[in-house]
Amino acid sequence: MHLLMTELFPICRSITGDGVTQTLNIIKKDIPISIHKTSTGTKVFDWEVPKEWNINEAYIKNSQGQKIIDFAKSNLHVLNYSVPVDKSVTLGDLKEYLFSLPEHPDWIPYRTSYYKEDWGFCITHNQFQKLGEDVYDVYIDSSLKDGHLTYAEYCIPGEIPDEVLISTRICHPSMCNDNLSGICVATYLAKELRRKKLRYSYRFLFIPGTIGAITWLSINESKIKHIKYGLIVSLLGGEGGFTYKRSRQGNTEIDQVAEAVLKAKSTSSKILDFSPYGDDERQFCSPGFNLPVGSLMRTPFGEYQEYHTSADNLDFVTPQALEASFQLLRDMINMIEVNKKYVNLNPKCEPNLGKRGLYNLTGGDWGGRDFQLALLWVLNLSDGKHSLLDICKASGIDYESISKAASRLLEHQLLAEHHEETFNSSIFSL
Amino acid sequence: MHLLMTELFPICRSITGDGVTQTLNIIKKDIPISIHKTSTGTKVFDWEVPKEWNINEAYIKNSQGQKIIDFAKSNLHVLNYSVPVDKSVTLGDLKEYLFSLPEHPDWIPYRTSYYKEDWGFCITHNQFQKLGEDVYDVYIDSSLKDGHLTYAEYCIPGEIPDEVLISTRICHPSMCNDNLSGICVATYLAKELRRKKLRYSYRFLFIPGTIGAITWLSINESKIKHIKYGLIVSLLGGEGGFTYKRSRQGNTEIDQVAEAVLKAKSTSSKILDFSPYGDDERQFCSPGFNLPVGSLMRTPFGEYQEYHTSADNLDFVTPQALEASFQLLRDMINMIEVNKKYVNLNPKCEPNLGKRGLYNLTGGDWGGRDFQLALLWVLNLSDGKHSLLDICKASGIDYESISKAASRLLEHQLLAEHHEETFNSSIFSL
Amino acid sequence: MHLLMTELFPICRSITGDGVTQTLNIIKKDIPISIHKTSTGTKVFDWEVPKEWNINEAYIKNSQGQKIIDFAKSNLHVLNYSVPVDKSVTLGDLKEYLFSLPEHPDWIPYRTSYYKEDWGFCITHNQFQKLGEDVYDVYIDSSLKDGHLTYAEYCIPGEIPDEVLISTRICHPSMCNDNLSGICVATYLAKELRRKKLRYSYRFLFIPGTIGAITWLSINESKIKHIKYGLIVSLLGGEGGFTYKRSRQGNTEIDQVAEAVLKAKSTSSKILDFSPYGDDERQFCSPGFNLPVGSLMRTPFGEYQEYHTSADNLDFVTPQALEASFQLLRDMINMIEVNKKYVNLNPKCEPNLGKRGLYNLTGGDWGGRDFQLALLWVLNLSDGKHSLLDICKASGIDYESISKAASRLLEHQLLAEHHEETFNSSIFSL
Repeated sequence: MHLLMTELFPICRSITGDGVTQTLNIIKKDIPISIHKTSTGTKVFDWEVPKEWNINEAYIKNSQGQKIIDFAKSNLHVLNYSVPVDKSVTLGDLKEYLFSLPEHPDWIPYRTSYYKEDWGFCITHNQFQKLGEDVYDVYIDSSLKDGHLTYAEYCIPGEIPDEVLISTRICHPSMCNDNLSGICVATYLAKELRRKKLRYSYRFLFIPGTIGAITWLSINESKIKHIKYGLIVSLLGGEGGFTYKRSRQGNTEIDQVAEAVLKAKSTSSKILDFSPYGDDERQFCSPGFNLPVGSLMRTPFGEYQEYHTSADNLDFVTPQALEASFQLLRDMINMIEVNKKYVNLNPKCEPNLGKRGLYNLTGGDWGGRDFQLALLWVLNLSDGKHSLLDICKASGIDYESISKAASRLLEHQLLAEHHEETFNSSIFSL
Repeated sequence: MHLLMTELFPICRSITGDGVTQTLNIIKKDIPISIHKTSTGTKVFDWEVPKEWNINEAYIKNSQGQKIIDFAKSNLHVLNYSVPVDKSVTLGDLKEYLFSLPEHPDWIPYRTSYYKEDWGFCITHNQFQKLGEDVYDVYIDSSLKDGHLTYAEYCIPGEIPDEVLISTRICHPSMCNDNLSGICVATYLAKELRRKKLRYSYRFLFIPGTIGAITWLSINESKIKHIKYGLIVSLLGGEGGFTYKRSRQGNTEIDQVAEAVLKAKSTSSKILDFSPYGDDERQFCSPGFNLPVGSLMRTPFGEYQEYHTSADNLDFVTPQALEASFQLLRDMINMIEVNKKYVNLNPKCEPNLGKRGLYNLTGGDWGGRDFQLALLWVLNLSDGKHSLLDICKASGIDYESISKAASRLLEHQLLAEHHEETFNSSIFSL
Repeated sequence: MHLLMTELFPICRSITGDGVTQTLNIIKKDIPISIHKTSTGTKVFDWEVPKEWNINEAYIKNSQGQKIIDFAKSNLHVLNYSVPVDKSVTLGDLKEYLFSLPEHPDWIPYRTSYYKEDWGFCITHNQFQKLGEDVYDVYIDSSLKDGHLTYAEYCIPGEIPDEVLISTRICHPSMCNDNLSGICVATYLAKELRRKKLRYSYRFLFIPGTIGAITWLSINESKIKHIKYGLIVSLLGGEGGFTYKRSRQGNTEIDQVAEAVLKAKSTSSKILDFSPYGDDERQFCSPGFNLPVGSLMRTPFGEYQEYHTSADNLDFVTPQALEASFQLLRDMINMIEVNKKYVNLNPKCEPNLGKRGLYNLTGGDWGGRDFQLALLWVLNLSDGKHSLLDICKASGIDYESISKAASRLLEHQLLAEHHEETFNSSIFSL
């Protein structure tokens, strides 16, 4: 994953443009994503697909002709979505177009202006402080033209049409944790899942933030009824324990799975309630969709210093952190795959487990019969209302034992899967 | 308010009689109340309107002809609703008709006997202890005759027929906190509200305790379906922080508003659960009505020493305490007026706030964008199920910001008011 | 109760056989139980009624012809349901059929093998350690033949068909706490209840564990809809405070009653959530029945050292412990008998309690009018939704006062009983 990240790092991505296409073409070497393009001006709910932005070159030269700031050195130097500029300005005028971070004088900040035509340069505060009175040439060779918004989708069909949605943002330029980490972990997860026999269908989205999610939802409204579990993955490569942010509904199956896996597998994780700020859960959990979509990350955005700066680089993200994130997602998916509701086919009184070899037949001695207890709990609560996770919670027994008990009972035809209608539908209509 | 209280203080009020009429005529100089009279003997649910009580004079004279207890000095001296008496009694006989407070030897207690024909005198314990063996003339020139029960009502119409009910008792003789404070604060609140443009209609009741509430409910059953918020106001002039006693339902909008305002505006307030003892919430919250009526007071009845004694006088109640109570009620009404449920008119994905000038368009920098967060919370939770107060609770954002966000979104036609049926109806029918 | 226990103690009971019949015949001297027999091989849900087991004699003799283990000394010495054996074995072979308790070298363990044909001896560890290399004669003169499973039932009809089920196990040989204590307390409770005028009908079951409950449920499915309260009684004679284990539903009326009585009457009681392991609540609370059946005991099974050993004898169980258990059950039944829901017949405003002599008519003085408060609480919450126990909980007033208040209000025709449909029905059908 870190190698893929290293390959993707130099590309200048934005919410549209060639950087996105280059990125998706590299991902396509690992997994057979389908790439979709939506034209500038397409109405997507309350929004319009914006003009496509591309950039070749940009710099600030001093009066001696020296390039003191150069896009070629870091694509963060240019305010993302800057319009073309080619003029001479005084220091005083220039300063209004400069962004720097006094508290981190070596770092370049990351700034965008997608929806207001503007230009600017992001520079280190050391660079800022060296600027003397002078006349500067500012040059940005960018274009903002009718074109496309590009995103990719990869669907792995499972036994049932119910879907697990995994979505990650592809719009950030050269920064690793935010969000090459999400891209790389999602890619490798898809790569692994395509080789497996799966119960659920899995849909991976590689989309630009906000407008990408809005565009996808607008085009794919008919698909969302299949989304039974959803997860935004981002910020998976930095330091810090895992953070899971609940869906708007707050207690859907994805929330239960995430909380159970974090509790079992992670020592210092945090669970946050939903809030309508953050990543694309803002769109998936808008009241008209209210999908069961949570968000998995490590340290949340805004809570680590390197966030949205040039310091979020290939050193900041470690292969170990990526690997641990990958493992955690794998554990969540394992649980999603088996966390079902069952019905006890002998609901009246206990079935005779002894005659099926499932029960210690010398009675009277009460010892640590944990597995027998797991069998009894699964039988007792399998009334079509309790998932295996619910049974874990009620019994205090670990998921492995409960799910093994369910398997044994299925083999003996004492349980059957409970089928219910997929529960998603817009909770809100005007 | 304290001046009005000073004017009302000397009047000998009871649940019926001239004192009530005099009181209402003074209130009428401030607000155009309508005065209603119900005849003695009228059946009101399980009760009957009692005979009307009036009193001219009353005293106890010793054998030397000295008036040692005189109604002219304090109307508390006579057991309220005493029947006429004119006889000579020994000290021993007299003592059976005397009430005093050994623990407060200077104070006159307040006692009543509305529903059992009786007579008596309430005196200070110092007076009690000076009584020597003697023959005393006891004289009460009162009358208990067919007449009327009198109460007043003042309705300020608002945009919608849903009503806020504010009810206060007018049956106590010369005591200030209980309940001239309630009368004065309610009068001034009505005086202010009549000059305002109001969403809700406001109904003020000035009624005798218990039998007045029962009479009003009996006559006005058809009106109660409009009561959406209700509040008993009393004990608003004494010391101590505010106390709010919840309605029987316990979590209606009046309960939510009272709790939110007390939390925001008051440093040492208390919230009590409903109990079927206290003021007229006993009637409004009887199971056959179960109205959303709470009770606002300062120190509750029975919890301060001056309660129901002559020490509850014009010194005990301060203008500052009345003013603070008035302010708190004003804050509650401000919140009632705006605490609505809305629907997001763009429920699918976020609306584009930037193009409407509602969003900071230079992205990438996460600072303290509190107002933008307030906008996002209001949009996300405006699904017709969450009031603005609910949104405050979910978001942790203060009411001013949330309500300002709702106003801005309304201006931009991104929200609409959610209309729902008035929810009151008798929860209980035989 | 301890005398009855002493009479029952020596009998060798099992899930079938003559010991059960002898036991029931002794109980029949106290209460007119009806004895039911179900034939071996009868299909009862997923089970079959097993062969009937009887035993005459059993011993282990050493090569010198000494009976070193003798069933005549303790019926625990034989693995319950042992098949007949008559052979000579070496010490090595014998050891595979021996059970002892190294941690309690003087005690004989209790073991069973109902559903796997096997044989064995349970001996003290001291006996085990004295066994030298030798050839032993093992002899068990038992029979395992087609016959019957026997249980008894005693129904005391009440005013209404709704039933209180009290079930206890009769399958344990010579052990007192488990479960002669349950048998004796249930017998004496039935003996007392038959002399009383009862609202509910009471059904006592004396059944063998597990297979007895399954058999009863299988035969009596049509009766279970009447079970409104159910209680398994066992382990009522040992040390330790009371333990109540909730029904599967967890908050039914039996749960509420048990918790209220334990709170009021017992200083160190414990409330456990339901789990599908333990006594016959396993069957009554299987998902296809899900009956409101809890379990009352003192120290739970497996949590005291004497459990399922010869040390659970007539000294371990004291008359005092049995008596206290009996009293507690009596208190629970008293509460069950009166814990109803009522409707206030004057739901609109308070009724006039004063004219009915139920209210102190000299007003103004707020003292400790506890009984008046109890009346007001009962009136206010009697809307057909709150039981008297619910009213205790809401008001904080003790059950005696609340139930006395309800009685007074009934006498004055201010309350009526609320009738509702019996709520039990299988929650689960395939």
